[in-house]
Amino acid sequence: MLPVDSLTLPRFCGVPTFMRLEQNGSLEGIDVAILGIPSDSGGPYRTGARFAPNAIRAMSVMLRPINPYRGGVNIFETLRVRDVGDCGVVPGYLEESYRLIEEAVTAIAAAGVVPMSLGGDHSVTLPQLRALARRHGPLALVHFDSHSDTWDSYFAGLRYSAGTPFRRAVEEDIVDAAHSIQIGMRGSLFSPTDVSQSVELGYEVLTTDDVFALGAEKLAERIRARTAGRPVFLTFDMDFVDPSAAPGVQTPEAGGFSAHETLTILRKLNGLNLVGGDVVETNPLYDGPGQITALLAATILSELLALLADERRGA
Amino acid sequence: MLPVDSLTLPRFCGVPTFMRLEQNGSLEGIDVAILGIPSDSGGPYRTGARFAPNAIRAMSVMLRPINPYRGGVNIFETLRVRDVGDCGVVPGYLEESYRLIEEAVTAIAAAGVVPMSLGGDHSVTLPQLRALARRHGPLALVHFDSHSDTWDSYFAGLRYSAGTPFRRAVEEDIVDAAHSIQIGMRGSLFSPTDVSQSVELGYEVLTTDDVFALGAEKLAERIRARTAGRPVFLTFDMDFVDPSAAPGVQTPEAGGFSAHETLTILRKLNGLNLVGGDVVETNPLYDGPGQITALLAATILSELLALLADERRGA
Amino acid sequence: MLPVDSLTLPRFCGVPTFMRLEQNGSLEGIDVAILGIPSDSGGPYRTGARFAPNAIRAMSVMLRPINPYRGGVNIFETLRVRDVGDCGVVPGYLEESYRLIEEAVTAIAAAGVVPMSLGGDHSVTLPQLRALARRHGPLALVHFDSHSDTWDSYFAGLRYSAGTPFRRAVEEDIVDAAHSIQIGMRGSLFSPTDVSQSVELGYEVLTTDDVFALGAEKLAERIRARTAGRPVFLTFDMDFVDPSAAPGVQTPEAGGFSAHETLTILRKLNGLNLVGGDVVETNPLYDGPGQITALLAATILSELLALLADERRGA
Amino acid sequence: MLPVDSLTLPRFCGVPTFMRLEQNGSLEGIDVAILGIPSDSGGPYRTGARFAPNAIRAMSVMLRPINPYRGGVNIFETLRVRDVGDCGVVPGYLEESYRLIEEAVTAIAAAGVVPMSLGGDHSVTLPQLRALARRHGPLALVHFDSHSDTWDSYFAGLRYSAGTPFRRAVEEDIVDAAHSIQIGMRGSLFSPTDVSQSVELGYEVLTTDDVFALGAEKLAERIRARTAGRPVFLTFDMDFVDPSAAPGVQTPEAGGFSAHETLTILRKLNGLNLVGGDVVETNPLYDGPGQITALLAATILSELLALLADERRGA
Amino acid sequence: MLPVDSLTLPRFCGVPTFMRLEQNGSLEGIDVAILGIPSDSGGPYRTGARFAPNAIRAMSVMLRPINPYRGGVNIFETLRVRDVGDCGVVPGYLEESYRLIEEAVTAIAAAGVVPMSLGGDHSVTLPQLRALARRHGPLALVHFDSHSDTWDSYFAGLRYSAGTPFRRAVEEDIVDAAHSIQIGMRGSLFSPTDVSQSVELGYEVLTTDDVFALGAEKLAERIRARTAGRPVFLTFDMDFVDPSAAPGVQTPEAGGFSAHETLTILRKLNGLNLVGGDVVETNPLYDGPGQITALLAATILSELLALLADERRGA
Amino acid sequence: MLPVDSLTLPRFCGVPTFMRLEQNGSLEGIDVAILGIPSDSGGPYRTGARFAPNAIRAMSVMLRPINPYRGGVNIFETLRVRDVGDCGVVPGYLEESYRLIEEAVTAIAAAGVVPMSLGGDHSVTLPQLRALARRHGPLALVHFDSHSDTWDSYFAGLRYSAGTPFRRAVEEDIVDAAHSIQIGMRGSLFSPTDVSQSVELGYEVLTTDDVFALGAEKLAERIRARTAGRPVFLTFDMDFVDPSAAPGVQTPEAGGFSAHETLTILRKLNGLNLVGGDVVETNPLYDGPGQITALLAATILSELLALLADERRGA
Repeated sequence: MLPVDSLTLPRFCGVPTFMRLEQNGSLEGIDVAILGIPSDSGGPYRTGARFAPNAIRAMSVMLRPINPYRGGVNIFETLRVRDVGDCGVVPGYLEESYRLIEEAVTAIAAAGVVPMSLGGDHSVTLPQLRALARRHGPLALVHFDSHSDTWDSYFAGLRYSAGTPFRRAVEEDIVDAAHSIQIGMRGSLFSPTDVSQSVELGYEVLTTDDVFALGAEKLAERIRARTAGRPVFLTFDMDFVDPSAAPGVQTPEAGGFSAHETLTILRKLNGLNLVGGDVVETNPLYDGPGQITALLAATILSELLALLADERRGA
Repeated sequence: MLPVDSLTLPRFCGVPTFMRLEQNGSLEGIDVAILGIPSDSGGPYRTGARFAPNAIRAMSVMLRPINPYRGGVNIFETLRVRDVGDCGVVPGYLEESYRLIEEAVTAIAAAGVVPMSLGGDHSVTLPQLRALARRHGPLALVHFDSHSDTWDSYFAGLRYSAGTPFRRAVEEDIVDAAHSIQIGMRGSLFSPTDVSQSVELGYEVLTTDDVFALGAEKLAERIRARTAGRPVFLTFDMDFVDPSAAPGVQTPEAGGFSAHETLTILRKLNGLNLVGGDVVETNPLYDGPGQITALLAATILSELLALLADERRGA
Repeated sequence: MLPVDSLTLPRFCGVPTFMRLEQNGSLEGIDVAILGIPSDSGGPYRTGARFAPNAIRAMSVMLRPINPYRGGVNIFETLRVRDVGDCGVVPGYLEESYRLIEEAVTAIAAAGVVPMSLGGDHSVTLPQLRALARRHGPLALVHFDSHSDTWDSYFAGLRYSAGTPFRRAVEEDIVDAAHSIQIGMRGSLFSPTDVSQSVELGYEVLTTDDVFALGAEKLAERIRARTAGRPVFLTFDMDFVDPSAAPGVQTPEAGGFSAHETLTILRKLNGLNLVGGDVVETNPLYDGPGQITALLAATILSELLALLADERRGA
Repeated sequence: MLPVDSLTLPRFCGVPTFMRLEQNGSLEGIDVAILGIPSDSGGPYRTGARFAPNAIRAMSVMLRPINPYRGGVNIFETLRVRDVGDCGVVPGYLEESYRLIEEAVTAIAAAGVVPMSLGGDHSVTLPQLRALARRHGPLALVHFDSHSDTWDSYFAGLRYSAGTPFRRAVEEDIVDAAHSIQIGMRGSLFSPTDVSQSVELGYEVLTTDDVFALGAEKLAERIRARTAGRPVFLTFDMDFVDPSAAPGVQTPEAGGFSAHETLTILRKLNGLNLVGGDVVETNPLYDGPGQITALLAATILSELLALLADERRGA
Repeated sequence: MLPVDSLTLPRFCGVPTFMRLEQNGSLEGIDVAILGIPSDSGGPYRTGARFAPNAIRAMSVMLRPINPYRGGVNIFETLRVRDVGDCGVVPGYLEESYRLIEEAVTAIAAAGVVPMSLGGDHSVTLPQLRALARRHGPLALVHFDSHSDTWDSYFAGLRYSAGTPFRRAVEEDIVDAAHSIQIGMRGSLFSPTDVSQSVELGYEVLTTDDVFALGAEKLAERIRARTAGRPVFLTFDMDFVDPSAAPGVQTPEAGGFSAHETLTILRKLNGLNLVGGDVVETNPLYDGPGQITALLAATILSELLALLADERRGA
Repeated sequence: MLPVDSLTLPRFCGVPTFMRLEQNGSLEGIDVAILGIPSDSGGPYRTGARFAPNAIRAMSVMLRPINPYRGGVNIFETLRVRDVGDCGVVPGYLEESYRLIEEAVTAIAAAGVVPMSLGGDHSVTLPQLRALARRHGPLALVHFDSHSDTWDSYFAGLRYSAGTPFRRAVEEDIVDAAHSIQIGMRGSLFSPTDVSQSVELGYEVLTTDDVFALGAEKLAERIRARTAGRPVFLTFDMDFVDPSAAPGVQTPEAGGFSAHETLTILRKLNGLNLVGGDVVETNPLYDGPGQITALLAATILSELLALLADERRGA
């Protein structure tokens, strides 16, 4: 189950799957399933994240299997990983899409496989949490983002969108806010309660400036302490990163982290009981010819795989 | 109510409204309302038409008020036209968006004003037809497009999308298929019934090759004869045009009409009892730096205004 | 072996294969193999055609299985077609790449399967001709292009490049020039012999203006007469088309055919004994966000499949 | 006078004005006027800043009214702000444009309103200074830029361009150099006097490396001390920022500040008697699809508004 | 004086000069000088034509010396041509730029050399006409364009811009309108006199539709008859061409000629006493990655060289 | 031999040479030759670096002759520098290209001139090292890159590519690994030996995180100590820089240095006996409209010139 070797066959040969892994929908004999969730119906501003899973796959062919930041772990010798393709979605019908996403993740979880997903806009996290909470109970959420996504409703008073999932998740009791943390909030606000609303829901909230003040090592400790061994879902919104390093997102927020700062934070994480994760809000239509956002998103997902491999190896 | 004069103030000065007209939401004292309908929730493939109304406005500043192809009619001395801005929409909730669109067009029609709209994907035509049929009875549809958009359902069996409005419109009895015509169909098909399904609904259907064979003058006669003085809604899908002249669309179909062929067809139209119209499916994200699709869409809408002015003047 | 249904699963779901066909390397039980040949080492000017097979696949998801221009033939009910992926290539070593391409096509031909390939620059046609001539004898070449590609050598006197394959093919006796035809030559020349060199090699040569004068029907007759039932390889260089409709090519030549003119020519072809074909010289790096060249290349390959299906059905 | 609420109406609805504020030319009842100055006739290299005011408006719809970096001040509850549109300009006639700009800003100042402008190239600052100095006397200039723009003349010995305004301003006695400061100079020089020429004119000059050494807090003190309560005009040239975070500028200079560093500097400013300001040299033609420069320019202008609101509130 | 041979040295090697000709400023021993005029100060809408001369040079490396449409004439064996580089210009000071352009062309004409120029916006033609009329007397103008450029004044009543040169030229008696012709006018108008104003100045005017009706051969006759052997300046505005084939222009006008139609018209021209020419209004910033407008502009200039070579050879 | 003065003639006038220097192939009377090496046949993933030398030249017109970071040295008053144009290459035949590159650099070295080159992909460094080692003996290599490029072979077991030059150079005894250093390695690995393979060859290796830990001053000391006065070739791969500041490269690696960090490192270098250098792996096709990678590459080469000037002046 090793990926195609890029020293043998050039990276541009073959339809690109995540990190050149085998792709098919079977859940047999694997530890981790890479799932594309090409839904952008929840995006309140830019749209096009439906093309993100394949854009990230296309850039992920640049990555190699060994992660030197975790003792040289070979991800694919430690974990059996397959790219299981995309779940179906229904453009224009967010709640229908939710049903299809939840179904796909439920099947993955039922097979004892850890889902690692490629969004899609941030609305896709909610149905994943629903599927996983059914198996693991309320989840500890580790949430990297420049926005808290805990508004109550969006246009026309509707309750589902990329701006509301983490309020809904608390209301539905599928996230355990007391063991959850939101990291990287910044930028201008709609109302004075924009930050306090997350705190009132029970989340710990760290702004971008808080993170700069803490540093990567202390942040990792804080996250480990907060999640306290509970089953963790890690959701990474690409707008956590500064638009210079991630121009291809749906709702960019100036003044974020560089790619090096971002990756250093992720490489310091440990002691998490990861049962699922996603990388969301990449939008290739705004990424420019270099597709640097897609490359960074792929790199971030590969760091999450390395974290998982590291924990498994250590276990 | 004349537009800003581009010989006095450069076109790049000021926020661009359609053809540099006054913009506000009032329906007082006007004959025609230019309405933006920034909905792309119905698009089955590419998305981003939500940005089309403003992209078309931005290029429309290139246009001038006099149309030499209709005896030098000055559109804005003949018709009082205002850019009334955009109606609201709800991304991810197509049917909610339908309610908002229908409401906006109902208000325009109630004021005795002709709505000329800028989509949005082709799903936005249905709620406009609903609003106008309530006032005028079942409408004669003049439909330029490379696709018939008369499929029965799309993903998950759902009934509304950019691929189904003209079946729904017949079912809802808001279009009078016996006086309606679809013009420009081409390209590969899903099933052998793709063309016959429109004919079975009662539409007259002309393929791209039929139109080339007929020529613009005879086509105009055919349309006039078919609509027979009934209230007409003219809907123009930008993928009628070849992708070379309209690369910025949602579902491009190779092998269509050039810009000159397209404009010639529109300039020959006459004898239509136009009660509304729209230009849909422009997608500025795919249009390239020259924004030639947006320019052509603006030009097409101005031709529809000139047609209306011409008829009014003649009346 | 039918493709994914785009009325059921949106086209942006799943890694894109050619026309959403099943993809794997098996040659069992198929009539036609779609093969990507991502080599651009032979391109004398622009480079990047290595990314063309996947770019064409990405746009080919727009296409539907039924071709209305050939009596509504359903390609995939008539022919069993599989996307067999890409052959390997060696950037910087054109002759090594030739060995790998020839090997891949030899295997396809040996299985009694018709190869239809996606280049790559035009140098990739030579090793395909070598493989097929070994099976079928010298081939009748039907060559659409704005350049004859019959120069004797290129830089440093080297004999292989995108500018020389059809001289080499005659020298190697794998093309039967007396039954071959080059169609669409135009533009400025290096030397007065640029056209006569092809004629001297035995090819029939029609310039762009010759084709405009002949028309599609007579051109089809001329091609059928010239190939006279012999095994035909049809090679289509995207720079046959005008840069307005095919901006994403390696060596664009102003003043060519529109997409409609191009497709009409292909749709009139018949009576060819097609044993292989390719569509080459697409370069997605120059294609702009609309990717209209890739869409047209995909459409052209689907027309070749329809031609093949039509002949098989008729047989 | 509050902006459109982006939780109610999607940001892509409606013609974009600065931060979705009401737009019209009236100066009645407002504290601050957002003025577009679409002039690029002074740019010595790239051109296209004429399109910047609207590009910045388009991205400014992302911003929200509350600034958490200044105690949660709601800008628009503290200040009455209107987008007053653009002044006229005359391409190709810089000095004519100067007359129109000066006229527009004079009217704003005469109404007791603070002008905050969106350039245009840096030549547009001079006529603004002229208008404001007439009301306030010689101004303290706070100038963020990678270039000093104090050359004596440019091509053909002409005295006005984007490279000369801050020499002219001293000569015309509309800037009080002894209380003015230039911040961020870097890059290669035309002559050894490039830096000393500013110092000789009386400016304090801090290079990029000086600013890195000082830090944001000390820089804020230094600026406050230097301007010493005098009426301040703050001019922000987007090439202060590194090209990674601001690729869409007219004369990029490698090696500048990140977006986070830039915003931190602005958020620390206080104790300034701001009577006007501008954000100049954005060029959307070079900004890429993500339009990150325009977003950052909008964010910077909103920080200047927050600074003003903060001072007013504190007053 | 032959260009670099693209069969020996790849086209991407070396700084690109026009058609890979020798480049230096000397006027010795040549028949024709290719002159870049990088001025865009006269453009009323888009700007950036200052980058056109080098963009056209970059694409002109694709061209080869022999023109098969004029009996296989080898341009550079018939005419001695040099790329003499660019004249200076002064951005923001159109009239200063005029002085520099006139000076450069005067020197070329004084050396008995025919200037063939690459604009720049259309305002650059006036100073060229001034220089050449001083030598040859009032010139017969052959003007391809979608706009007549005979307005009286533009912004602020100023008399020079890209919209006024051909009124000025008549007023200054440097063009002999009675032997001049404007070809290709189309699109919407500012006032009913937009067309008649040219006729009143004495020009013959053919609209786009007139040209389609006439055909290339009759048009060539008409032009030859109109110019009647007088010294001709041929000015070609790229917006004559449809935006599909020339997206990279300053003021695009939908509904024009294809590249093939355009080149056919130029290839039929003969019997002109060409003393100068230019190709103007290319704007590479709007041209997309394929740079098809620049390629077409280069091709058009090479056709003018072939026309000149043909006449010289015939002489 | 001073460059064109950008205060006199706008930077967009004239065909762009490196920093607007005189360009011709003569090696007479110069100290340094700027050589373009437009070869991308060695690139294993993206291709297009063949267009880099001219793209870098185009952006280098922004640079000015005086470097304030080295005591205000005027590069061109200290060193006589000429842009000698490009050497020839043979696309598709890497080893043929090697012969042409080696020949060109041998001639430069033979004239006692220091070559400073613009790649091309990283494979172009090997033939330069061959040419220079013949004159200077085995060279001390100072290698900035995110990849070590010391793999043994690439596709099909072939020994030359952008991934192998620094293994070949040790095997050929043209680099003295014991006095060489590789700086900036990061990212995922093919095998656990990816780093150790360089160390086994004798190189000192510093990862990106090592460099962040060391700081620029200590890094400069380390490099000076390692090279110990021996003849140095400095090779700079643009993927050393983070993709945010250098998106236009062939094999981007997320998590690198900012432009300011990169330039600070180079500005601290001293005490090197520089006999040659290159800046490689820029790919303008992926750089976006701002061309910030090309600007940074030009800036880096000008820093190398300043380093050389500084040493010469000091000598």
